[in-house]
Amino acid sequence: MPCGYRVAVVGATGAVGRKMIEILMQRNFPVAELVPLATSRSAGTEVEFKDKCIKVEETSKGSFDGIDIALFAGGGSASRAFGWEAVARGAVVIDNSSLFRMEENVPLVIPEVNPQDLKRHKGLIANPNCSTVQMVMVLKPIYDAVGIKRVVVSTYQAVSGTGKLAVDELERQVKDYAGGCTISAEVYPYQIALNVLPQIDAFTPNGYTREEMKMVNETRKILGDNSIDVSATTIRVPVFYGHSEAINVQTEGKLTAAAARMLLAEAPGVRVVDNPDECIYPMPITAAGKDDVMVGRIREDISLQNGLDLWVVADNLRKGAALNAVQIAEKMIELGLI
Amino acid sequence: MPCGYRVAVVGATGAVGRKMIEILMQRNFPVAELVPLATSRSAGTEVEFKDKCIKVEETSKGSFDGIDIALFAGGGSASRAFGWEAVARGAVVIDNSSLFRMEENVPLVIPEVNPQDLKRHKGLIANPNCSTVQMVMVLKPIYDAVGIKRVVVSTYQAVSGTGKLAVDELERQVKDYAGGCTISAEVYPYQIALNVLPQIDAFTPNGYTREEMKMVNETRKILGDNSIDVSATTIRVPVFYGHSEAINVQTEGKLTAAAARMLLAEAPGVRVVDNPDECIYPMPITAAGKDDVMVGRIREDISLQNGLDLWVVADNLRKGAALNAVQIAEKMIELGLI
Repeated sequence: MPCGYRVAVVGATGAVGRKMIEILMQRNFPVAELVPLATSRSAGTEVEFKDKCIKVEETSKGSFDGIDIALFAGGGSASRAFGWEAVARGAVVIDNSSLFRMEENVPLVIPEVNPQDLKRHKGLIANPNCSTVQMVMVLKPIYDAVGIKRVVVSTYQAVSGTGKLAVDELERQVKDYAGGCTISAEVYPYQIALNVLPQIDAFTPNGYTREEMKMVNETRKILGDNSIDVSATTIRVPVFYGHSEAINVQTEGKLTAAAARMLLAEAPGVRVVDNPDECIYPMPITAAGKDDVMVGRIREDISLQNGLDLWVVADNLRKGAALNAVQIAEKMIELGLI
Repeated sequence: MPCGYRVAVVGATGAVGRKMIEILMQRNFPVAELVPLATSRSAGTEVEFKDKCIKVEETSKGSFDGIDIALFAGGGSASRAFGWEAVARGAVVIDNSSLFRMEENVPLVIPEVNPQDLKRHKGLIANPNCSTVQMVMVLKPIYDAVGIKRVVVSTYQAVSGTGKLAVDELERQVKDYAGGCTISAEVYPYQIALNVLPQIDAFTPNGYTREEMKMVNETRKILGDNSIDVSATTIRVPVFYGHSEAINVQTEGKLTAAAARMLLAEAPGVRVVDNPDECIYPMPITAAGKDDVMVGRIREDISLQNGLDLWVVADNLRKGAALNAVQIAEKMIELGLI
């Protein structure tokens, strides 16, 4: 192993890009050089990395010459323009956009769930959708133990999933409400403060949104099983950080709540937070800033022979995005793939 | 019919009691005399009714002498102490507490759904739980058309469902956050502003909360069908007024989304708000203050042969509580039961 890697972060000034840089530092990722990239609008600003300020450069094809690992968090447009170009110039790309996730030659990976898929990579690895990651982290041990037939999931998603502008919008709306001022909406079609919005991403012809269909298709791809049925309803709530999910799982075999609790307690990256008698359960305010996916409210479904109800909360910018991307890079190093 | 009824409102200074008095006025309910009742703590304060201020009296057994209709919104303790006593003294009691809902001799009624159950009343009629009312309003036409096997529901419930103190708590927490002050929690075990709480009411031995079990048991009783399976996860969100619900329905027969939309458009008290292309869907900020139960995001479940996904929002203090209680009284008058 060299003393370190040249790591580019595309979208370095956005919510996920900033979090990637923070996590590279926190985990002591072997960075020989950090190259923060962004659009021309943000080029020239600086990011902090290991007590140094590094100037953000405008992304160009040449930016990727000599780069070992490129973490893409600049949205679909940056990934479309520079994703495969970066691969062509020798970088391994870990892409947080949804653009390539369902392409056959692109592994879609959660390192704790399907690390083996990294071995067939063609230079570009996709990071799954935030709401999918935390759900599949909890489904995987159940799937391995007793099989899964069908999942019905409703989400309670934080505004940071939309990006920094949405965080600013909720902050401004809360202050406007408190100050008695009129609340205006720009990022979302309606006010999000003191409201919930039953739409995340655009609608598709079947009436589900793209976010909802990501939870169906990505779950199947990551678990490698197209027979799993998923129905999702994805909802935005006025929370800054931390997506929550009410997950109803119909299993093939029987799994008691006690057995599920033990199984999940042993799952890597999952923490069981489940003591109703003491009002102990996962919440956004306690999951924010944490690496683990928190699961609680574990109970046997009274409406099915074989079923479980779960409440799952995770920091959507960490395990749902930046942390998972960095963990993919770590796993690739461990497997000798970088 | 006399020129009006002597109507008592128990818990007249609480969130639901106040709303009952407001709705009696708005609907021109034939009130000959309004008698607002409360605990000793609130006795002596005044409520406004038809441009008159009426002094709130402390509830006692004698309060119900000569009362025709007593609307109870004083919680379980008031209903326990005075519910059947008021009946013994000649009043018809419509009780918003959960205390008597599952008792065999107490009809549990949504006037649009099961008005016939009023005919077998023994003086006390129970008003269903707020989250149950809005769900069953939408399930009923589907049930009648194609039958219902199983429902999986996740709720997004407003703080006003807890009462006036919880509304005040969210208001205070939002202002404290905006002002940079520490946020304290008294009504709920944790901060509700900018958070979600996966607990409503106390936990039961099977891991579900009482609120969740109400949605199971009350749905069966109102629809008169114990074969309907329901799994509920009830969640508190930082919204003042308006409960939202993501409802997944497994039907016996096939119902297309288009057919469901037509069916629901004709259902009394239900309004279809469903035009995804224009971002038209129900939300708490638009449902608050309205009488109708709003339904949108109507789509065929892709994970089942026969299933629907629905998003249902209603004003929890109106159709979920005070309005339904007043409508029960109206229906009883119409049926000659009072």
